[in-house]
Amino acid sequence: MATAPLLASSTVLDLAQPLPLDGGQQLDGVRIAYETYGTLAADRSNAILICHALTGDQHVASPHPITGKPGWWVRMVGPGKPIDTDRFFVICANVLGSCMGSTGPASLAPDGKPWGMRFPVITVRDMVRAHVALLDALGIDCLHAVVGGSMGGMQALSLAANFPERAAAVLVLASTARHSAQNIAFHEVGRQAIMADPKWKDGDYYGSAGQGGKGPEKGLAVARMAAHITYLSEEGMHDKFGRNLQDRSEKTFGFDADFQVESYLRYQGLSFIERFDANSYLYITRAMDYFDLAEEHGGRLADAFANSTARFCLVSFDTDWLYPTPESRSIAHALNAAGCPVSFMELSAPFGHDSFLLEVPALDGVIKGFLGA
Amino acid sequence: MATAPLLASSTVLDLAQPLPLDGGQQLDGVRIAYETYGTLAADRSNAILICHALTGDQHVASPHPITGKPGWWVRMVGPGKPIDTDRFFVICANVLGSCMGSTGPASLAPDGKPWGMRFPVITVRDMVRAHVALLDALGIDCLHAVVGGSMGGMQALSLAANFPERAAAVLVLASTARHSAQNIAFHEVGRQAIMADPKWKDGDYYGSAGQGGKGPEKGLAVARMAAHITYLSEEGMHDKFGRNLQDRSEKTFGFDADFQVESYLRYQGLSFIERFDANSYLYITRAMDYFDLAEEHGGRLADAFANSTARFCLVSFDTDWLYPTPESRSIAHALNAAGCPVSFMELSAPFGHDSFLLEVPALDGVIKGFLGA
Repeated sequence: MATAPLLASSTVLDLAQPLPLDGGQQLDGVRIAYETYGTLAADRSNAILICHALTGDQHVASPHPITGKPGWWVRMVGPGKPIDTDRFFVICANVLGSCMGSTGPASLAPDGKPWGMRFPVITVRDMVRAHVALLDALGIDCLHAVVGGSMGGMQALSLAANFPERAAAVLVLASTARHSAQNIAFHEVGRQAIMADPKWKDGDYYGSAGQGGKGPEKGLAVARMAAHITYLSEEGMHDKFGRNLQDRSEKTFGFDADFQVESYLRYQGLSFIERFDANSYLYITRAMDYFDLAEEHGGRLADAFANSTARFCLVSFDTDWLYPTPESRSIAHALNAAGCPVSFMELSAPFGHDSFLLEVPALDGVIKGFLGA
Repeated sequence: MATAPLLASSTVLDLAQPLPLDGGQQLDGVRIAYETYGTLAADRSNAILICHALTGDQHVASPHPITGKPGWWVRMVGPGKPIDTDRFFVICANVLGSCMGSTGPASLAPDGKPWGMRFPVITVRDMVRAHVALLDALGIDCLHAVVGGSMGGMQALSLAANFPERAAAVLVLASTARHSAQNIAFHEVGRQAIMADPKWKDGDYYGSAGQGGKGPEKGLAVARMAAHITYLSEEGMHDKFGRNLQDRSEKTFGFDADFQVESYLRYQGLSFIERFDANSYLYITRAMDYFDLAEEHGGRLADAFANSTARFCLVSFDTDWLYPTPESRSIAHALNAAGCPVSFMELSAPFGHDSFLLEVPALDGVIKGFLGA
């Protein structure tokens, strides 16, 4: 369904108060870049906060300012769509630590120079604290729902656990309550790829190029390529690429991208460096690796939801091997143990982890149903 | 079972004839470094060729000359072991393209300078051609068995398909008849990590450091880290590392290796660069990606075995997600279709792809039984 770009309100909030961080520091001068769609009801009861994933941004349903591509969830957010901007006031904020306008390692520190690796290591809960500060500024006491996939789902869970009064419903897609050893391992490969690039310069690469992902481009591209494999399913890659050759009928017996899958991955790496800051990649992957909602709450996941009165909906995808179904199931069990209303379903889709972003009609119905009524 | 190192005979063969390659070239002056164990019977009927994997070498049961570690398959090869050197004459040759004595990109080209990226792109079949040249030199017309895991299994299959008269039995462990899109994708990440390292210098990095893996060490370490994740199972990583911290009781809120799995992966990367040449990594991964036994034989895998009279045994491991069980099953189906005697079993082991190298007692029985009698 081709539609004109939504009218998005794109703005920033500068926090008046320092933001307390899990690492023990306080961060002064935090800026939060966010977009809103639709109209906030007079009773402020119709707000939905959408939390984005690792490399996402606030442009959930408006064109990306650098790439010009449509927002990352236009299929789900808009008038008459499952997250219906005719009914809901939709908010999407760039996470703390990112590079699309919110404060992160590429931002200027109080000394007037980019933070670089002097930026404090943050957590998913810190990102959520920034979201809550934004809700405070918008005068929204309780969200109609908080929604997120992947790292967005971690934020939704963290908000439910740490600010249980701030959301009446919690929708978590393709996510997990803690990063596994394999999850950490893949992120560590990406970080090492970035840090191995001599242009990383211990994170102090902004001087000549300014903000915006210049610097360790080759390392960042490799990190993205490795991560991208984890976003697709083996079956999906086979169906999409198989062993098909790229624009040639014979192997070249060389190191060009003979195979389509090689060409595709190289493209993913190259296009990523246009829009993402390598240090942000380090910080956000670290936040995800640190995420362990049970650990934050005494070691028992159910205790994270002890004070929750929200409704929950969890969705996993059968081909997602990054955060496979058992991760969602364990969250559902914890919510059951905590006495929280929860619906949980595994949807079948060929796209692996990325399924929550792609054409999975069954998901539309689930989201509409859960938010709707 | 602690035993003294086996008496291995370590030697090289310089081929008198040029080696024809799938890429159309002929390679002059090919050297093959190999080891043998045990005694060749007078009728030359008791030889077993063991084919090593991507980063393996000929030191199957003797200490590695650089690391000093025991041979990579000491648990399987030796007197009274499943591959019994009291009975069999065991041969293991460093593959063409590698860096442990056989001709590869770090070897000197006819112009007296290292080949570097001027080395021709080779295939698994080219590796097998070199093995067959070695068998010719040793006067072995027909092997008692050819044995290999992972890329070693590809060589075993390729030998069975292309030189069917040269082996009476074929044992293939944790392998595949063709590299999948996901397999190619992971290898491409590794290659890009190496090529992104400025010390790679288009492969011309030998000048100052000589042969042996100096050069793009950081890129090679990243490549190894990414690959290493694919050798382990998710469950195995969880059981071994979980979210355990490394030598600390609290997260550091920094980018050190807080988690054991990070520390482990970094160690894997660093120890690898001591013993492996980055260009060899490029060439051998390329050979694996090019491997498609069906494609080589008109597109139908069964036709690859049309002239085979060998017995086959295939073993997969239930936690191997690099070359999962369906890959072996499809080989078994093709062998059935070709009328070849084949036994196929999936073994349960927690170690993922690496299971064929590790403590899986059931495998010992399978190998002993298949080779024995």
